[in-house]
Amino acid sequence: MANNEDQFKKVLSHAKEYGYVFQSSEIYDGLSAVYDYAQNGVELKKNIRDYWWKAMVQLNDNIVGIDAAIFMHPTTWKASGHVDAFNDPLIDNKDSKKRYRADVLIEDYCAKIEAKIDKEVKKAEKRFGDAFNKEEFVSTNGRVLGYQEKINTILSRMAKSLENEDLADVKALIEELEIADPLSGSKNWTDVKQFNLMFGTKLGASADSAMDLYLRPETAQGIFVNFLNVQKTGRMKIPFGIAQTGKAFRNEIVARQFIFRMREFEQMEMQFFIKPGTQTEWFKHWKEARLKWHLSLGLGEDNYRFHDHEKLAHYADAATDIEFKFPFGFKELEGIHSRTDFDLKQHEEYSGKKLQYFDHEENESYTPYVLETSIGLDRMFLAVFSNSLIEEELEDGSSRTVLKLPAVLAPVKAAILPLVKKDEGLVKLSKQIIEDLKWDYNVVYDEKDAVGRRYRRQDANGTPFCITVDGESLENNTVTIRHRDTMEQQRVKIEDLKSIIKKEVDVKEWLMKM
Amino acid sequence: MANNEDQFKKVLSHAKEYGYVFQSSEIYDGLSAVYDYAQNGVELKKNIRDYWWKAMVQLNDNIVGIDAAIFMHPTTWKASGHVDAFNDPLIDNKDSKKRYRADVLIEDYCAKIEAKIDKEVKKAEKRFGDAFNKEEFVSTNGRVLGYQEKINTILSRMAKSLENEDLADVKALIEELEIADPLSGSKNWTDVKQFNLMFGTKLGASADSAMDLYLRPETAQGIFVNFLNVQKTGRMKIPFGIAQTGKAFRNEIVARQFIFRMREFEQMEMQFFIKPGTQTEWFKHWKEARLKWHLSLGLGEDNYRFHDHEKLAHYADAATDIEFKFPFGFKELEGIHSRTDFDLKQHEEYSGKKLQYFDHEENESYTPYVLETSIGLDRMFLAVFSNSLIEEELEDGSSRTVLKLPAVLAPVKAAILPLVKKDEGLVKLSKQIIEDLKWDYNVVYDEKDAVGRRYRRQDANGTPFCITVDGESLENNTVTIRHRDTMEQQRVKIEDLKSIIKKEVDVKEWLMKM
Repeated sequence: MANNEDQFKKVLSHAKEYGYVFQSSEIYDGLSAVYDYAQNGVELKKNIRDYWWKAMVQLNDNIVGIDAAIFMHPTTWKASGHVDAFNDPLIDNKDSKKRYRADVLIEDYCAKIEAKIDKEVKKAEKRFGDAFNKEEFVSTNGRVLGYQEKINTILSRMAKSLENEDLADVKALIEELEIADPLSGSKNWTDVKQFNLMFGTKLGASADSAMDLYLRPETAQGIFVNFLNVQKTGRMKIPFGIAQTGKAFRNEIVARQFIFRMREFEQMEMQFFIKPGTQTEWFKHWKEARLKWHLSLGLGEDNYRFHDHEKLAHYADAATDIEFKFPFGFKELEGIHSRTDFDLKQHEEYSGKKLQYFDHEENESYTPYVLETSIGLDRMFLAVFSNSLIEEELEDGSSRTVLKLPAVLAPVKAAILPLVKKDEGLVKLSKQIIEDLKWDYNVVYDEKDAVGRRYRRQDANGTPFCITVDGESLENNTVTIRHRDTMEQQRVKIEDLKSIIKKEVDVKEWLMKM
Repeated sequence: MANNEDQFKKVLSHAKEYGYVFQSSEIYDGLSAVYDYAQNGVELKKNIRDYWWKAMVQLNDNIVGIDAAIFMHPTTWKASGHVDAFNDPLIDNKDSKKRYRADVLIEDYCAKIEAKIDKEVKKAEKRFGDAFNKEEFVSTNGRVLGYQEKINTILSRMAKSLENEDLADVKALIEELEIADPLSGSKNWTDVKQFNLMFGTKLGASADSAMDLYLRPETAQGIFVNFLNVQKTGRMKIPFGIAQTGKAFRNEIVARQFIFRMREFEQMEMQFFIKPGTQTEWFKHWKEARLKWHLSLGLGEDNYRFHDHEKLAHYADAATDIEFKFPFGFKELEGIHSRTDFDLKQHEEYSGKKLQYFDHEENESYTPYVLETSIGLDRMFLAVFSNSLIEEELEDGSSRTVLKLPAVLAPVKAAILPLVKKDEGLVKLSKQIIEDLKWDYNVVYDEKDAVGRRYRRQDANGTPFCITVDGESLENNTVTIRHRDTMEQQRVKIEDLKSIIKKEVDVKEWLMKM
């Protein structure tokens, strides 16, 4: 656990130091749960987005994209259910005036009991040594069982109360457990109230015509309201998909874990419109297809798992998460949801317009079912980045920090290093190589410090190739190319550089692994 | 004028019919001045963005990108001047309850006088025929001179009053001119008031800690607040630039002309940090460089002109617009501004942090000057789209609608057409060709209707190439490739398709024309 926390701290500081992610508005002491992508981060994010777009839109002849605005007609959010039901249960402490998520207070209380279990386990482990069987211990030890039962009782009561909108009981639970404000220690609580997570704003200045708008809390609705226009103008036949990437906003009270849960974030979503009755087959198809996409990046099969939802949202008839092993544990990276015809039907009701598809083969009209794949681009960024950051012991006993990003996603593909920066011939040749490569790849010139140090810097930066230009280069037009991951060096002809780089960074080569 | 209006109407309907731009939330009767990019529009927009990014970031070794959040610390907008001075002067009609921009009411009044001048000119033209000299006429005809003087008097008084914040005089002017509400005819006006154009929202739910946020009205400030972090972590040396693309929001009261002026729009900006004293030279450099970029797309040299600002914003010491000939006349497409050290100095003052650069060569610290290039992505989209939409008379007397988009920007690069859709062999070979091409290009399959009609459809869609697969294809592995603009058809080997397409659509080939 401590190791994971350390690893996560390293991720944060490395992301800043190497120009991947900065705290937003840092000179004004930051804006909570909002981050800016820096010079390397913007390229990594863009490369992930393009990798997804290419796989989803360009390679599938029955999927097209759109780019709907963040502002939508407010009735959209009545129809989608967000105005009425996109809430967090909040509670204020009357003494400290601080506000909390009631469910998080209770969960944090349970986490403390969980910590007691861990302590018992560690104690027993120490006592029994190699003979210790954790599974047996936790299923038989009286104290542990008691703790576990307490947790279960609390959480199931909370879940039931939230489901029934019985907020008085949520407050009662907090009082019974004697949960105190973590800041002030006060137990003087207000009632629990629902708080809508959408950011609101006003459109237009006219006194009588100002309109309450929301910043979209998800991109999906932009696809649903455009479904029929896309189908008709694009002459799409079911089954077909509409894909979109774009910003969404949620006024999270407890936003944490760096870019994992932000108030402003980017989604990559695809809604696949299908014939009712075929959803089970398509759900299976997209589960497999999406996992294959993830695996093609080579972050390691063991880092992914499916988490099928037992409790389904009101609109879903099946749902699963692709979870990724972040430094803080397995967490949702992508969701795959069978949404039925819920959304289209809602929009039909609220708009009074038919959103039906005429199936020429079946000679009938119907409201399609929808299969959704939805991935957080920022989470994907964090998955790739945190997984790639490695502290490596070398054979000579020293260590290096290397950011082993999949080469296809690396912001900078190659650094060109003249062995000696004062040698005009080497500098000139280095710049010629850049002039030639830059049309196809992001490349940088790096002349400062000894070559070994430059290698380390580029390792930490995630650059897959270092190309060193030395005296021999001027004689026979060869250079040394060093591979980031293996640290292997090869002497190659300058004219072969492009094809060597292409082989390892080309999107096509990577996607073909799917 | 009438022709231009017709052309503009065609642009709007074509944009919808061929899946480029839809009215936002159309099923809810739309959201004023907000638009969604449809299946072709999203690709065209993406291609323009990539073309800009590649030219600005990838090809310039001293320019890097960032992607700052839309949400920024609110003090940012105090420092930038937007909280205090980003206003429109508004006036309400007491009878109709409608709100207007006071300056627009006055400008519309002047436009009516302008129309009278046009009428006089047309009358005289008719009278004098070939002997008519417009320039001479307008500079000597008493009536025209009187109209012109009236316009000048009105506009200069308005400009002076607005500059001095003398809103009472703006109202007085409206009353003196007896300007009536265009809707109701009423002249019963309220006072003129300043209205801030930023969209506001609130972050966080806590009663005491909720923070007033703004949706950024421009992307530039995201670059300024990150300037020092980028410079240090990226080890950038002056002169260097930071580029960014992203959404910005303005609560425009009068938003019109389709996607030309929207409430939610996307900017592509680059801030170039330079040594004080070098701004004139860099202003000249970026004027030329940016015009070259535009000209590389081949929309026609005559469609661009510079408009140097005589009246400068308080932060600028030089400014010019690159104007483009839209269907509604020459209008700003891109701005190039010499912003001095105004922005960085303001942020230093408000944050209390030094935003200085240490110049190793000069051995001194200074606050850099800034040269900005700022282009509206949506405007660029409109420029490309409207300029490309052509109604063409053909030799046989018929006509065709063709969207002559620069091939590098076209959403779909090629359509593959089996001559006969019922011929399994042709369909199979067509799909094989798609399987091969789709890894590199967006391609579509089109089997419906006669080939001639499919050609017209792809012309209207902007697809540069149609590839027709016929009986002969099965015998000798050749196909017909038809070029959208020339309608020329060639018989080529299937194996040569990729290189033929690449030659015409490759970003590198196009950028090399700069």
